Amino acid sequence: MNHDIVFSRLNEFMIELPSWGFADTGTRFGKFNQDAAAVTVDEKLADAGHVNKLCGCCPTVAVHVLWDFKPDQAAAEVAKLARSSGVRIGSINPNVFQDQQYKWGSAGNRSSAIRKHAVEHMLDSIAIGKEVGSNLLSLWFADGINYPGQSDIVARKRWFTESLKVLHAALPPDMTMLVEYKPFEPAFYATDIADWGMALLLARAAGPQAKVLVDTGHHYQAVNIEQIVAWLLDENMLGGFHFNDRKYADDDLTIGSIDPYQIFRIFCEIENHRFRTGSVPPIAYMVDQSHNLKPKIEAMLQTVDMAQQLYAKACLVDRKALAASQENEDLVQSENILRGAFLTDVRPLLAEWRSSGGLPADPLAAHRQSGYEARAAKDRLAKHGKKAGGAYA
Amino acid sequence: MNHDIVFSRLNEFMIELPSWGFADTGTRFGKFNQDAAAVTVDEKLADAGHVNKLCGCCPTVAVHVLWDFKPDQAAAEVAKLARSSGVRIGSINPNVFQDQQYKWGSAGNRSSAIRKHAVEHMLDSIAIGKEVGSNLLSLWFADGINYPGQSDIVARKRWFTESLKVLHAALPPDMTMLVEYKPFEPAFYATDIADWGMALLLARAAGPQAKVLVDTGHHYQAVNIEQIVAWLLDENMLGGFHFNDRKYADDDLTIGSIDPYQIFRIFCEIENHRFRTGSVPPIAYMVDQSHNLKPKIEAMLQTVDMAQQLYAKACLVDRKALAASQENEDLVQSENILRGAFLTDVRPLLAEWRSSGGLPADPLAAHRQSGYEARAAKDRLAKHGKKAGGAYA
Amino acid sequence: MNHDIVFSRLNEFMIELPSWGFADTGTRFGKFNQDAAAVTVDEKLADAGHVNKLCGCCPTVAVHVLWDFKPDQAAAEVAKLARSSGVRIGSINPNVFQDQQYKWGSAGNRSSAIRKHAVEHMLDSIAIGKEVGSNLLSLWFADGINYPGQSDIVARKRWFTESLKVLHAALPPDMTMLVEYKPFEPAFYATDIADWGMALLLARAAGPQAKVLVDTGHHYQAVNIEQIVAWLLDENMLGGFHFNDRKYADDDLTIGSIDPYQIFRIFCEIENHRFRTGSVPPIAYMVDQSHNLKPKIEAMLQTVDMAQQLYAKACLVDRKALAASQENEDLVQSENILRGAFLTDVRPLLAEWRSSGGLPADPLAAHRQSGYEARAAKDRLAKHGKKAGGAYA
Amino acid sequence: MNHDIVFSRLNEFMIELPSWGFADTGTRFGKFNQDAAAVTVDEKLADAGHVNKLCGCCPTVAVHVLWDFKPDQAAAEVAKLARSSGVRIGSINPNVFQDQQYKWGSAGNRSSAIRKHAVEHMLDSIAIGKEVGSNLLSLWFADGINYPGQSDIVARKRWFTESLKVLHAALPPDMTMLVEYKPFEPAFYATDIADWGMALLLARAAGPQAKVLVDTGHHYQAVNIEQIVAWLLDENMLGGFHFNDRKYADDDLTIGSIDPYQIFRIFCEIENHRFRTGSVPPIAYMVDQSHNLKPKIEAMLQTVDMAQQLYAKACLVDRKALAASQENEDLVQSENILRGAFLTDVRPLLAEWRSSGGLPADPLAAHRQSGYEARAAKDRLAKHGKKAGGAYA
Repeated sequence: MNHDIVFSRLNEFMIELPSWGFADTGTRFGKFNQDAAAVTVDEKLADAGHVNKLCGCCPTVAVHVLWDFKPDQAAAEVAKLARSSGVRIGSINPNVFQDQQYKWGSAGNRSSAIRKHAVEHMLDSIAIGKEVGSNLLSLWFADGINYPGQSDIVARKRWFTESLKVLHAALPPDMTMLVEYKPFEPAFYATDIADWGMALLLARAAGPQAKVLVDTGHHYQAVNIEQIVAWLLDENMLGGFHFNDRKYADDDLTIGSIDPYQIFRIFCEIENHRFRTGSVPPIAYMVDQSHNLKPKIEAMLQTVDMAQQLYAKACLVDRKALAASQENEDLVQSENILRGAFLTDVRPLLAEWRSSGGLPADPLAAHRQSGYEARAAKDRLAKHGKKAGGAYA
Repeated sequence: MNHDIVFSRLNEFMIELPSWGFADTGTRFGKFNQDAAAVTVDEKLADAGHVNKLCGCCPTVAVHVLWDFKPDQAAAEVAKLARSSGVRIGSINPNVFQDQQYKWGSAGNRSSAIRKHAVEHMLDSIAIGKEVGSNLLSLWFADGINYPGQSDIVARKRWFTESLKVLHAALPPDMTMLVEYKPFEPAFYATDIADWGMALLLARAAGPQAKVLVDTGHHYQAVNIEQIVAWLLDENMLGGFHFNDRKYADDDLTIGSIDPYQIFRIFCEIENHRFRTGSVPPIAYMVDQSHNLKPKIEAMLQTVDMAQQLYAKACLVDRKALAASQENEDLVQSENILRGAFLTDVRPLLAEWRSSGGLPADPLAAHRQSGYEARAAKDRLAKHGKKAGGAYA
Repeated sequence: MNHDIVFSRLNEFMIELPSWGFADTGTRFGKFNQDAAAVTVDEKLADAGHVNKLCGCCPTVAVHVLWDFKPDQAAAEVAKLARSSGVRIGSINPNVFQDQQYKWGSAGNRSSAIRKHAVEHMLDSIAIGKEVGSNLLSLWFADGINYPGQSDIVARKRWFTESLKVLHAALPPDMTMLVEYKPFEPAFYATDIADWGMALLLARAAGPQAKVLVDTGHHYQAVNIEQIVAWLLDENMLGGFHFNDRKYADDDLTIGSIDPYQIFRIFCEIENHRFRTGSVPPIAYMVDQSHNLKPKIEAMLQTVDMAQQLYAKACLVDRKALAASQENEDLVQSENILRGAFLTDVRPLLAEWRSSGGLPADPLAAHRQSGYEARAAKDRLAKHGKKAGGAYA
Repeated sequence: MNHDIVFSRLNEFMIELPSWGFADTGTRFGKFNQDAAAVTVDEKLADAGHVNKLCGCCPTVAVHVLWDFKPDQAAAEVAKLARSSGVRIGSINPNVFQDQQYKWGSAGNRSSAIRKHAVEHMLDSIAIGKEVGSNLLSLWFADGINYPGQSDIVARKRWFTESLKVLHAALPPDMTMLVEYKPFEPAFYATDIADWGMALLLARAAGPQAKVLVDTGHHYQAVNIEQIVAWLLDENMLGGFHFNDRKYADDDLTIGSIDPYQIFRIFCEIENHRFRTGSVPPIAYMVDQSHNLKPKIEAMLQTVDMAQQLYAKACLVDRKALAASQENEDLVQSENILRGAFLTDVRPLLAEWRSSGGLPADPLAAHRQSGYEARAAKDRLAKHGKKAGGAYA
């Protein structure tokens, strides 16, 4: 096991936290509120900063424009708040799904007025990005249709193409536009950007700064996600990841909680790309998880720990030995080499890496000892009062 | 085509409407509100009565205890409201998932106090059923766990068994207790009653008045639902259905909107049971759909129409010819007999049945002409004001 | 219902039959042989000719190079045999999966010698196509890997790109090269051309005469196939279809036997493309089904009948009314317009179309009356003897 | 880490090898033959004996009656052959799927003559079991239907019930009858014993010596297998396992090759049952894998190694700590306790266990050094000649 290489990779493996991951969320059947959950953007940033202080690898926070910025507030203020919490603003996430006008879609809406409104919100998001020093515009669209016949699939495809071109034209040169795909939910019959093929075609049509965003939970059952990642890398179209795990749908579970070997294999494709080409393009590693039951901060700490473990394992694969074994079509040996890295316990190594950087060897334990959550609960209860649960119907 | 038999079957094919199907609901990403959506129980009952007046086959309304009854209101008053709208109260649906105390489960919660609280709510629901003249207690549990290790699956199974036994002991002799299963959502790793096998074992353990409730949207992909229905009928364990359709998960789409042939095949198993045994046990046919986009009443009218069409088609199968063809292992002919009934256009027949009963031949058109929705929208907007959409996080 | 338009569409809707669909095939657990199953290419062509005589819409036969051509036989002889049976040779299907050398792949094999061998076989197939007057090269690759680590996904992608470019360069100007995708089987972990996105990228890399082939059974559960078809049409990348149906995997069931509404929706996208653009590009409609239980010819007759019915239904959609309804976001009405066409019984119309062309109104009945199968069984038993079943292990 | 407990569990964890796992098998698209693959029963037993010598935990071999016994050979001779190879005969597997008469089913066939024939073969299998000293009758049925309408699902259910009762009546008191379920393949529309619920009901109807057999590859996507295992244990209906893994269907991949964490969780439920009740019922752990590409013996060695690793990991879970953490609804901690055991590298421990028993620490390396495969290939090639691949059509 080559510590140096793993340490060097861990030094570069930065994971972005989502501001919304610190707030109460739920399923359509209700929310179970947590007293310590963040409500305001400064609380979210404080929580993210706390996680980053413990983990040392989460310097940026993804923000949702609608939830984290106020019309009457300069975006730079949020950036300042972030800095004061020890983090920076990362990807900018427009919200073109929540407003009532988006009932029939945003960039895929047949109404040119609503499409324009959506595009303007996204142009505003680019402006916010510039203001706060972010170089990532992260686009997820809830657009789609619920029933056969509801709308024209191809017309929507073209409206999307148009809108994305407009956005791309407004990007500053160093900003990347990520196009996310998702097979279903909240659209139930056809989602406008349903799979990586659609995301890739739309991104290519938009322009060279548009890349594909892979959310690990946004695939049909049995899809080989690492194969998609490998293809996107080879096509120079991989922009980043949303980390989470799931058993059935887009369950937003903590990464590696259901199938850690799959996440490991995804990281292996990235390291294999490095082995093949000598480098890895910029990839945004971002958490996208909404926790109904786990304490928010603990869930983030667990996520970061597991992502680091799985990434470190992927770095342990002896790529030369694997290539030689593959060359011989020695299938059993090839598999053993790959899986052997997965079976290796990297927790001691990771603890060592943390200690070498002045971080607690066990961030979760450190968090529990810190009393942070109890203080947050007390302060936030006092500030916001007890929250209601929300009803299904 | 034997009109008489189809007419006679349609005369008996009664479909229960859900009170919650007339209210605004949504996905976890938000709700798109409708001005005409019902808010109060009397509005829900009025809408259901309107549908029943147009369709003539929806005499009962499923109620959700938490949403439709108030602690300070006699249940009989709701029954009276129903009668005044031309319907009766049908299945009683307790709600043991929304309250904050149910974060870790209801009947499967490790806390005996919370289990007791849940059971008491369900006992209250039985009492309400008695008071309003309902003979159906319909149980759906959101209970389950989100992560491996979270809880002990078998302990939960036993707590469920205990709770259901207590409920069964409190049932009046003519009341049936329906046990619903669902593979996932809102629990993401393991749902306590995940499939028909678990529902059947729990129902058998509870007692003879407990039966299984099949929600057509609550199955893994590719599961043969009609086979499950056939087995449940043969085991005398089929209690009823929740009607809806889906493409991926529990999408709550209108029945037959995605795969009408599957719903037809389910009805075929029921008619085959009649052919085999001479009768069909009491089966509760209930709609369970939450529409985000479709106007609520229109969606119900469409649902009822499609359910009737598919049921009528199933009645057209020439069972004797099919049996003879099967006897010869004449596979192509057997399939053609079954599918031939599906391919038959029964819309004229259904229109005739409606006219013969003094109903509009096209209930949806009649509804649109009635101006009901515009009036409801006006009245309800005036009464409740514009509703907010609800936020994801 | 506009008979003229439907008739005109049916006149153009030609369905290619597969030579291998008339031979005994099975599952990995064994084959159930049929005495009347074709063994030789002339028997297969005779069966296809028989089907075409009854249906009038199956003028071409797909051939498998390995099974239908002999090294020492001029391809033109097979073409002559076809003509004498009343059909022509359609798509040419190379076989680069059965030979022992393809254990680790064909065009994706790391061995340049084996890749070259596979390419040469496919070049030979192009030559055969020229000789027999076919303008379709239909490529399906079994290539892929069974285990993580077995091989380098990207290396294989590149080998495929190279091979397909060589093939494309050898195409005569009027020949189309179809690239098929399949998510799994016989490769179990990663198939080299797993989805439409991969097929599209490879086809684009190969050249302008390469298009994507959509096999209706080659998708993950819940994938929206009609959406893929719509995108491929809009990208001018749809080359053709392999018709079949399935419940779980690539089950090779007769089309429309499990989910007829889905096939209808696929045809709707094609007719919608015509409505949108005024024309439809050349699309090869080909049957790809292997029947274990159904008599081969009956299964083909059933397939053709069902495909014609579903296509005719799709032609009945009132596209202008649908567009107007969509324009109003009248979701219930839009769905009803689309589904209304599906619910229409087109069997009388189809019978009329057949009669107008001098064809039997009920081809299956005509076949059963013809005594063809009994004669074939007698002759072929005499010629080939009783066949053995083949063992699993 | 408590070595003693893990060692003690490993001492009891015996894994049965399948005789057919050493022979050439394939997919429906062909077989890739291996020179060293076993052809005769003595070769299969020799290979199994070789594996057992290296692993020390595979004392028994599952046999397929049709393939491993000859009508004119006393079963005891096969038992003798086994002993001479250092193994015993384990589960007896009748074959009621391969013969041409089983085209429409075996125990579910409408023909009473064929049902009787199938039952007689299974009664013969019981007799063989008695003769060879086996106490396991392992029943898998390919029975089912390919198309809606093909047959009556309930009639088939009843025929199955009858047949299994007859078999149960013939069991010697110490023999267990295992009933396996499988959702699809080779039946494509409805398999007669499709899920654990059906297997359980049939086994209960047959009698107390009938239990359910869980094949880890026989589930729909996303099914929670460990939950089924937990329920079966609590219902005292778990009889055993067929080990394998899969990505999509019943792919027969080596266990733990796709999702090792899932297999670990299954083992955890078994150890949890022990923790809960103090004991574990007899469970037959059997490999059921057919390898197309991996060398047979290597695949078995890999399988046994991975099964032992995953089982050892499951034994490392600190059940008391987990129970305490669950008691506190400390979700993050509970998950960490469970997953922490999985993340622990048990390879050194397993090597130690092997060495303590006089076994090679690395059985695969020992096998590769032994020259066994090259010798087998040489001998078997000489004896049987080069095998043909078999054709698809």
